[in-house]
Amino acid sequence: MTSEPYAIIAGIGAGTGAAVARRFARQYPVALLARSTDFAKKLAAEIEADGGTAVSYKADVADEEDLGRVFGEIQERFGTTCAAAIFNASSRPFPKPFLWQSQSDVDYALSIKSRPLRNQHRDGAYHFAKLGLPLLIGSTGHDFVPTLLYTGATAGVKANAWMQPFAVSKHSLRALVLALADEFAPQGVHVAHAIIDGVIRMPLTRILKPLSSWHAKLDPDAIAESYWHLHEQPLAYMTTEIALRPFCETW
Amino acid sequence: MTSEPYAIIAGIGAGTGAAVARRFARQYPVALLARSTDFAKKLAAEIEADGGTAVSYKADVADEEDLGRVFGEIQERFGTTCAAAIFNASSRPFPKPFLWQSQSDVDYALSIKSRPLRNQHRDGAYHFAKLGLPLLIGSTGHDFVPTLLYTGATAGVKANAWMQPFAVSKHSLRALVLALADEFAPQGVHVAHAIIDGVIRMPLTRILKPLSSWHAKLDPDAIAESYWHLHEQPLAYMTTEIALRPFCETW
Amino acid sequence: MTSEPYAIIAGIGAGTGAAVARRFARQYPVALLARSTDFAKKLAAEIEADGGTAVSYKADVADEEDLGRVFGEIQERFGTTCAAAIFNASSRPFPKPFLWQSQSDVDYALSIKSRPLRNQHRDGAYHFAKLGLPLLIGSTGHDFVPTLLYTGATAGVKANAWMQPFAVSKHSLRALVLALADEFAPQGVHVAHAIIDGVIRMPLTRILKPLSSWHAKLDPDAIAESYWHLHEQPLAYMTTEIALRPFCETW
Amino acid sequence: MTSEPYAIIAGIGAGTGAAVARRFARQYPVALLARSTDFAKKLAAEIEADGGTAVSYKADVADEEDLGRVFGEIQERFGTTCAAAIFNASSRPFPKPFLWQSQSDVDYALSIKSRPLRNQHRDGAYHFAKLGLPLLIGSTGHDFVPTLLYTGATAGVKANAWMQPFAVSKHSLRALVLALADEFAPQGVHVAHAIIDGVIRMPLTRILKPLSSWHAKLDPDAIAESYWHLHEQPLAYMTTEIALRPFCETW
Repeated sequence: MTSEPYAIIAGIGAGTGAAVARRFARQYPVALLARSTDFAKKLAAEIEADGGTAVSYKADVADEEDLGRVFGEIQERFGTTCAAAIFNASSRPFPKPFLWQSQSDVDYALSIKSRPLRNQHRDGAYHFAKLGLPLLIGSTGHDFVPTLLYTGATAGVKANAWMQPFAVSKHSLRALVLALADEFAPQGVHVAHAIIDGVIRMPLTRILKPLSSWHAKLDPDAIAESYWHLHEQPLAYMTTEIALRPFCETW
Repeated sequence: MTSEPYAIIAGIGAGTGAAVARRFARQYPVALLARSTDFAKKLAAEIEADGGTAVSYKADVADEEDLGRVFGEIQERFGTTCAAAIFNASSRPFPKPFLWQSQSDVDYALSIKSRPLRNQHRDGAYHFAKLGLPLLIGSTGHDFVPTLLYTGATAGVKANAWMQPFAVSKHSLRALVLALADEFAPQGVHVAHAIIDGVIRMPLTRILKPLSSWHAKLDPDAIAESYWHLHEQPLAYMTTEIALRPFCETW
Repeated sequence: MTSEPYAIIAGIGAGTGAAVARRFARQYPVALLARSTDFAKKLAAEIEADGGTAVSYKADVADEEDLGRVFGEIQERFGTTCAAAIFNASSRPFPKPFLWQSQSDVDYALSIKSRPLRNQHRDGAYHFAKLGLPLLIGSTGHDFVPTLLYTGATAGVKANAWMQPFAVSKHSLRALVLALADEFAPQGVHVAHAIIDGVIRMPLTRILKPLSSWHAKLDPDAIAESYWHLHEQPLAYMTTEIALRPFCETW
Repeated sequence: MTSEPYAIIAGIGAGTGAAVARRFARQYPVALLARSTDFAKKLAAEIEADGGTAVSYKADVADEEDLGRVFGEIQERFGTTCAAAIFNASSRPFPKPFLWQSQSDVDYALSIKSRPLRNQHRDGAYHFAKLGLPLLIGSTGHDFVPTLLYTGATAGVKANAWMQPFAVSKHSLRALVLALADEFAPQGVHVAHAIIDGVIRMPLTRILKPLSSWHAKLDPDAIAESYWHLHEQPLAYMTTEIALRPFCETW
């Protein structure tokens, strides 16, 4: 077991997740959590090839048992000195009139698995905090303030027609994160909520949002740099919430 | 079956719920929903003695089936012309450090029954909208704009340490209501969220908050009057969110 | 000199001002302040014809001396028991690129007269509070809580491109009103800010905003009713800020 | 005349201003503006001794003519390629009951000079934008996105009793900055508002706020680092507003 600080990033996709993983891997060994690990494995290999340390883990963040098991494996491999835990998993918004919405839309938005399951099924963001905070609290005293960081969305502060499940999910996430920020700051943990207010530059959005020009989309590497800056903020002050938006919106 | 407009009030307790029921009973027959009906029965009798019409229903708003059954009974008794549906049910906040919180605290805050139950267990506010909106949409054209009104709390806009489950619950409620307001306004339904920012004057709070003087507490009859004013707002404009606070806070 | 409660309404135009004057005149003698009194005189005559009491005063709210003189005349005529003071004066927004804006745009938005003047030229909303609050404080103990009410705009909470002078003016107004609400509530005065979020139904907007249908515009009589409701709120609680918007926006 | 990018920092005091100047001087020649130049001169000498380039200018930002003259001198010395313009000047809050406040309190809060003066006396933040933006627009295409940055305060989003002049001043500032951010982002200029939510660590606050421990105060060097990060944000996205607060507040 090693006591070197490391980072955990949950929600590894081709956009923000990968960029954040690459950025934090420049400083730390990284544990990469993804529902399907094809991409995460390739990313881990890429990071290792660049001289970093990365291990990918298959985990459904919405499954408390699954997430608990993976955090156990991470501790065995990397120890208990977690410097940064970043939650980037999210459902996608599917606009639908309210009276057409069903429980499964709500479950989906809250990242709850749809198959029948036992009592442990719940909000992944909550479990991530439960499992991550003890590791973060234990890692104070290193170069940077231990950081618990969540990727949110504009729907966390604005609720629009047809978007009820997504808005409820993102408002909930924001409430969780800001309550944690208030509670854990005096314990020396920096908890923060990032409002990503725009479309991310990635292959999927190039297809789904073709009318939005490249420059009107957010660069995931730049988002990752901003996450890193939040982690760099010294104990002297902190930013609890940050919003990132494109310079020019064309849609 | 009658086509006279009526009101549904869910969450009948000795504070805001009873006051709102009394106020709306001056204009409408009222259906009173409560988890335990001892108080609601007495209130219904009181309203009837004053010349109004009131029926109490035992319902757990968090139980989809139960709520559906009660809405069926209400339609049989009162018809489909619902002029106002008011959701006043709420859990109470129980401050607790995050790492001490368990799933049952979260479930409680979200008004989810704690006993093992089938798949229908969820947020009562959501089901209330699902069942209430079709009745409200059908009642346009009467004296007042059909109104779907939810009682919220300051925790819906502010998340403090130790209050995570309550804050998540109230942020969720607010997102639901504001998304519905955005969607149903063009359909002629007034959806609104009331932020009750203070302690209510009632027997319970006289005991639990003795240091807070009577004048620093919110009068439930006055809150009810404000709810009535929201209902009175004509189609010419609407208020989506209203905050009510005491003039003088002494705690 | 009489000790009967009365109301002061500043900014009497064909829209909100006139409607508010008519509504409050049903309860109180009203003093009507307008920069040009042609319309205010007609309105006063109309109110008197309906059995009310109304006096129109020519006043530039931005001129401290002028406003002070008029408040003196009002006290001579109506006494010192002012039950409600409502500030409805406003500049109009004139969108203009920032680098094209000049000091006179800013002055105009802040309701500062453009002609060269001595040192007393400033924000009318500030002077209105300075002159109105002593009268309001003195009128506690009557039917309704003394009320100081300001008409604001969405620009008080949102600053858009080209709208800098108007946004600065409305943000300033909101800060003034909310600071006063915080200070004077414990003294028994209800101070409130109304965010009027939409186009008002009136002859001018029928011409300027023809594409916006009648139903997408705010009815000034309904706004007046909402102002009256704020005034009716008992000492048991208050609403510091209220937003009014159309049900359906078509532009 | 040189075309090398440079930075302008207005409001050079022993706290945030000096720290920001030192940080930006590591990348750019800096022009330091201060009402009294004793400290700014020493700081410029210190920066020069460390191998940087710094010139101090005596300027009253509230005096349009004075500020215009200084910007002329800066252009003569440094050219027209301004990479960053940072406005850090502020009045101090002096709590006072509203009815005790006078025009001079308001003038002071708005950074208006109190001595009788000609027509050009106004808000310094506005003039700084008017003079700075043309220089910033002209400097696109260099390493970093040209940045116009203002130091604000919590009073920009919250108006408390007795704080009316300060709240009005800071709400105005915020409206100005957010309107500029909306307008100039599509022109490739990053405009941002920093809410400094806490006491700054500096000699003055050690005396005035002795009960607040050192760790409950904001480190100006850390604030400067955050300002630098805002400047570093690439054209791919931007943060319009950032709030900085201490981890642990003890007062």
